[in-house]
Amino acid sequence: MLILSNDEIDSLLSVEIAFQSLEKAYREQAKGRAINRPRSDLYLSAGKEGTVYAFKSMEGGIAESKVVALRLNSDVIRWEERHGRIVKEKIPSAPGNKWVGLILLFSAETGEPLAIFPDGVVQRMRVAVTSALAAREMARADASVLGIFGSGWQAGAHVLAFCKVRKIEKVRLYSPTKANREAFAREMEKKVGVPVVPMDRPESAAQGADVLIAATNAITRVIQPEWVAPGMHVTCVKDCELGEETIRKADRIVIHARSFAPENYIEGFGDEKIEAHDPIDFLRGDKRPRENRPPPPFWVTAPELKKVIGGEVPGRQSAEEITCFINNIGLGIQFAAVGSAVYAEARAKGVGREIPTEWFLESVHP
Amino acid sequence: MLILSNDEIDSLLSVEIAFQSLEKAYREQAKGRAINRPRSDLYLSAGKEGTVYAFKSMEGGIAESKVVALRLNSDVIRWEERHGRIVKEKIPSAPGNKWVGLILLFSAETGEPLAIFPDGVVQRMRVAVTSALAAREMARADASVLGIFGSGWQAGAHVLAFCKVRKIEKVRLYSPTKANREAFAREMEKKVGVPVVPMDRPESAAQGADVLIAATNAITRVIQPEWVAPGMHVTCVKDCELGEETIRKADRIVIHARSFAPENYIEGFGDEKIEAHDPIDFLRGDKRPRENRPPPPFWVTAPELKKVIGGEVPGRQSAEEITCFINNIGLGIQFAAVGSAVYAEARAKGVGREIPTEWFLESVHP
Repeated sequence: MLILSNDEIDSLLSVEIAFQSLEKAYREQAKGRAINRPRSDLYLSAGKEGTVYAFKSMEGGIAESKVVALRLNSDVIRWEERHGRIVKEKIPSAPGNKWVGLILLFSAETGEPLAIFPDGVVQRMRVAVTSALAAREMARADASVLGIFGSGWQAGAHVLAFCKVRKIEKVRLYSPTKANREAFAREMEKKVGVPVVPMDRPESAAQGADVLIAATNAITRVIQPEWVAPGMHVTCVKDCELGEETIRKADRIVIHARSFAPENYIEGFGDEKIEAHDPIDFLRGDKRPRENRPPPPFWVTAPELKKVIGGEVPGRQSAEEITCFINNIGLGIQFAAVGSAVYAEARAKGVGREIPTEWFLESVHP
Repeated sequence: MLILSNDEIDSLLSVEIAFQSLEKAYREQAKGRAINRPRSDLYLSAGKEGTVYAFKSMEGGIAESKVVALRLNSDVIRWEERHGRIVKEKIPSAPGNKWVGLILLFSAETGEPLAIFPDGVVQRMRVAVTSALAAREMARADASVLGIFGSGWQAGAHVLAFCKVRKIEKVRLYSPTKANREAFAREMEKKVGVPVVPMDRPESAAQGADVLIAATNAITRVIQPEWVAPGMHVTCVKDCELGEETIRKADRIVIHARSFAPENYIEGFGDEKIEAHDPIDFLRGDKRPRENRPPPPFWVTAPELKKVIGGEVPGRQSAEEITCFINNIGLGIQFAAVGSAVYAEARAKGVGREIPTEWFLESVHP
């Protein structure tokens, strides 16, 4: 069994490999030859006051590649208000102030575990490349100005990936902390070779953008409806960054998956499966599951990305259309696709640490 | 991070430890201080003709022990007809003809992974001890004759565990293959020190039994309704071993969990979550999900074991009652409970193989 580090994965996983493997995954999914077990989040009180423990997991398999991936996150979480927005903060609480996110790959031919590695690099890449695949089908062909909200990992990956699908000539970015947006602009400008301009006001990042991206950790609206103009393509890493009003501005909506929110299992609400993207209100005790349960969002009936990639549903149909891709929730097949590509690269190049597979096998009937 | 083998776990995990840890888990669950993510099974075609790949997983956490467990099985499966019954066979397909079932433990205080080990020994013990805990509350106090169907791992663990909760004086067993039932009888007789008698006909195992157990891999009825007599306690490791008619004979029913069947995700049925204990009909193409979906079983409204262990719902109320415990599906908290007890024993005794936890941590934001 192979153990890889994020550094090793970073050296193995190019943006091109991510595009190829994800495009193939959505095509297979469109053909019914791939399967996901949707994301679930389990919440438990166990640590310091004001924090909660969350165990997130999802699974996916692709028949052709004969690989199944499990992706898990074992997080200590705190919700914080910053700059008037609520953000969900993952506190690095493991030894050395680290986080815990893992991808486990299994052979669907033999059942054996193939590899285990941290999820950080793959996770970042698959979100951005998925949104870029959608933009390839949905943004105007001549889109050249990118407006982006966020200055973290996800935002950086989005700039890289979107520059692969359109000839981007300028990036405008907004992030609430001046130092963060300026550092991000300098770093990204070097990487993509076009001007990346930090803006002092959020609406300035949106103005004149052909593609507008929210890639933040906010759980409240980031992109205001009045900023959305004809011909724009709007996207996000969580639907709450857009909110219903902004999404309603779109003439054409595509979503990542019909399963619109994680299935939450929360200590104290044992018998209730709560579908909500962020159960902060339940954890705070502001809401009880049976009352006040939010209805499914209106956009949940929009076509899934697989149909657009598979050619069953068209992308943009005119230059004036406002299009919107909601990268509403992750899918296990993203990890099966990118994870197995990374695994193949590692095997081909002899990268990684080998530990005995037999430690993880048994002759006792399970 | 600790790696343990089944042999090591076998040396660490006594029946007493399993009883203590599981009883505590159900008490915590009754208080709303434990939480489960119900079992899901993901099916993919990937291997040899006539087989299917299944990835099963469940999770559970207990606030007091500050541990979350993930249990997974990565199986190659075949359905076979044997002795007129359909059995679900897990084919040991990993290198060395082995199976793949794993328990991963995580700290809910820091998020870090604590241990990873095969599930075989824990799995066997938790099923049998859970059913024995139910029997402790539901079987007649003077129950002395055990009738058991099955001669495998589960059956063996049941005999051991049930002898801990009642003064059993005789065991009668039936299993379709003569050689199997005779070998099982000899082995168990040594272990429990009371006569264990193999029967040539199934009804003879049931006759005169105070406690009747099905612990087989059959997915069709094993215990016939006409064998069930007043005062009996009947139990099973899967509801299909009893079937609706047999269960209806009971005056008092307790179930393990309201979630009555795994949530199945099957290649080709991407958008359909299929609740069925065994999706053989769907995999064969005999059924389509929207048609013919079975209604929830009538017993799904029966109280859960946690309520009986927690004292909220009574066990047996008279000597004549027919009682029935349906160990209908596994729960993640069983693995959190028994798994963390095994982990504590291993740490106290210095058992197991240590690998660097840092391989499974990351400084990249997940």
